[in-house]
Amino acid sequence: MKRTSRDIRTANRYEVLRRIIASSPTSRQDLAAATGLSLATVATLVGELLDLGLVTEVGFADSAGGRPRGLVAVDTTGGFLVGVDLAETYVHAELFDPGLNVLARAEEQVPPGESRPERLAARVAAAVGAVIARSGAAGDRVLGVGVSVPGQVDRDSGVAEYAPNWDWHDVPLRDLLAEHIPYPLHLDNPLRAGAVAELWFGAARGHDDAVVVTLGTGVGAGLVLGGAVHRGVSNSAGEWGHTTLVLDGRPCHCGSRGCVETYVGAPGIMRHLADLAPHSPLSHPGDQTATIDALARAVAAGDPVATRVVRETARYLGAAIADLVNVLNPEVVVLGSWVAARLGEPLLRAVREAVAGRALRRPLAATAIVLSPLPTDPVCLGAATFALEGALQDAGAGRARRAAPTRIRTAPPS
Amino acid sequence: MKRTSRDIRTANRYEVLRRIIASSPTSRQDLAAATGLSLATVATLVGELLDLGLVTEVGFADSAGGRPRGLVAVDTTGGFLVGVDLAETYVHAELFDPGLNVLARAEEQVPPGESRPERLAARVAAAVGAVIARSGAAGDRVLGVGVSVPGQVDRDSGVAEYAPNWDWHDVPLRDLLAEHIPYPLHLDNPLRAGAVAELWFGAARGHDDAVVVTLGTGVGAGLVLGGAVHRGVSNSAGEWGHTTLVLDGRPCHCGSRGCVETYVGAPGIMRHLADLAPHSPLSHPGDQTATIDALARAVAAGDPVATRVVRETARYLGAAIADLVNVLNPEVVVLGSWVAARLGEPLLRAVREAVAGRALRRPLAATAIVLSPLPTDPVCLGAATFALEGALQDAGAGRARRAAPTRIRTAPPS
Repeated sequence: MKRTSRDIRTANRYEVLRRIIASSPTSRQDLAAATGLSLATVATLVGELLDLGLVTEVGFADSAGGRPRGLVAVDTTGGFLVGVDLAETYVHAELFDPGLNVLARAEEQVPPGESRPERLAARVAAAVGAVIARSGAAGDRVLGVGVSVPGQVDRDSGVAEYAPNWDWHDVPLRDLLAEHIPYPLHLDNPLRAGAVAELWFGAARGHDDAVVVTLGTGVGAGLVLGGAVHRGVSNSAGEWGHTTLVLDGRPCHCGSRGCVETYVGAPGIMRHLADLAPHSPLSHPGDQTATIDALARAVAAGDPVATRVVRETARYLGAAIADLVNVLNPEVVVLGSWVAARLGEPLLRAVREAVAGRALRRPLAATAIVLSPLPTDPVCLGAATFALEGALQDAGAGRARRAAPTRIRTAPPS
Repeated sequence: MKRTSRDIRTANRYEVLRRIIASSPTSRQDLAAATGLSLATVATLVGELLDLGLVTEVGFADSAGGRPRGLVAVDTTGGFLVGVDLAETYVHAELFDPGLNVLARAEEQVPPGESRPERLAARVAAAVGAVIARSGAAGDRVLGVGVSVPGQVDRDSGVAEYAPNWDWHDVPLRDLLAEHIPYPLHLDNPLRAGAVAELWFGAARGHDDAVVVTLGTGVGAGLVLGGAVHRGVSNSAGEWGHTTLVLDGRPCHCGSRGCVETYVGAPGIMRHLADLAPHSPLSHPGDQTATIDALARAVAAGDPVATRVVRETARYLGAAIADLVNVLNPEVVVLGSWVAARLGEPLLRAVREAVAGRALRRPLAATAIVLSPLPTDPVCLGAATFALEGALQDAGAGRARRAAPTRIRTAPPS
């Protein structure tokens, strides 16, 4: 159970920083009241954040009849974080301040068919270089780079264990990236990046149990359970895209058949279109982005074929989301990633109707289904959050090694 | 976040009692070391358990060079707990001491078709009365009765919201039971009872993430996530029996189609038998228990029809368990309840093979699939554990109300 104490400490550190980000400036007393932690614990954690330069003292507030309270706020000049969303069809990189505000963006298209690890690593490096150059950030102020990679990732070793859409097996991606990128690198997958972004800043904020559905080329479900991201025992939880929806149905590249992903991922949606209207001008074979964009525009214009494709997609997606509702009984299901963002409200409405026809009454009544409210790419934001978490963990470890840290900065002016 | 502090305190109280049950006698110092809690916290929690009479001081152990350490153990004379498993085909009641040792059992068959709430409540009351009489326990020493009811249960109101196999909707079962049973009543469902039993005493012990599959007339999955039972936002998590395995497949009494339960619950297995061998002597139409028993005996005897029925069941069950493995990435999947207990090793072997053919490599490698190792009915044990948890919660609330409790009992003899 030692592990649990450490986990609680780490979770508390994130929680305090989250609260400071959400309501800067704030006092240690308010943080203690908001988190339920003791004032002494909050003071220690704030001291760590001050040492790391992520937060700063910004003056004092009067408290009714008591001593003035020291206020802290995010130090938006305290360094930079980069979040990268490496997907099958694009690379997005965004640069953030410690308050997770976007300061610069860079984007590259990935040509259809490109899957060589070295090529994709070079594209990531180019995007990271571009976003740092564009922001004018000094390189030595970059605290870390979080990279989201599709499939299953070993966070400790930085190995991309399995990325089915690229047929990757045990690719040492962090090592490949480290040849180009001289900052601390933190790898995970889009499910967990999306989940942590929604938990810190989006539709899962304040909820104990939430499901963040990622709809892109691949699909999956980032899980927030008991107020934290659920990783499972080997960091591969959330592979809902590879659950069986149609026993012995469409073959899936994972080796199984009838997986959710084969019906609701971008290639699956393209197949619905091809089945319903074999020679549709909406179809751009081999180009997922163009096809989904064309579908989104056509739905908005009331095109009946596009509307039927969205309804057919929602029939499968609604059944598969009802499964998550029945198994996990979450407060909120968030639809995120690029396919959900593009198909938007029409997809959401059709999905809600399909879920209502399948889920059990009690969990259905407790669940809201929403589109991601995040204005930016949630996966970049989540990846940057992993870099921030990494910096915090290093800070905690650093403090433990250091002798006599000067952490007591709470005395008010006399 | 206040809720979280209280939850942590409740979890800590359970954890301390679990440790005392697991390794009586033990010292506060050893409990602190085993749980990672502070000695002061452990002393307070042990004080509560002493007040409640669930544990007792049993002497002192020498510690190397230090003061002798007070030892505590479960007080097996400290009262009684009753756990009831109310199922579609039977009522089991068991009476336990505070160490969760079974002292007496009672069992009633439920005739096929019986579903009236008043009749079933009377059967539960009869079983509870029988088990108390059989044990010779004094009624005023019964700390509480936990009752597991199929379907979805509101724990706070004691209402059975939905039990599909009985077509129950919003049945005020706790009120019906309270007319017969004069002890504190704690209701929940077999998924959570099975999960808590495996977590405290069985195959999930010491694991953060486990899935406890209940295979009976109905099927579901009790979830242990992050070291605790996952209930979801409205206590209805785990309804894996009502996830879609065959889109638009067999109609299910929940109103959907192709649900897991229709293929792997006892009636679903009977249908596999009827499909594979329409006039088999193994078939006992309308009698689930007799049919599953006949299948189990026939498999043991090498009967080819029974073997094919088990393999067909495992084909569906394996796909559906692979879904849980891929989504939750648990350390262990436990097969429990009466159908799993009866079909035993032959079913387990076939299920392992089927899961291996479907699940992703990384989560598959991390997961053990086992039969429940609990020698008794895990659902009775789990239901009794709910009664124990209820007694502990009352104790905590009672202490908070009491003035100046005499909780300091840690001084060694001089």
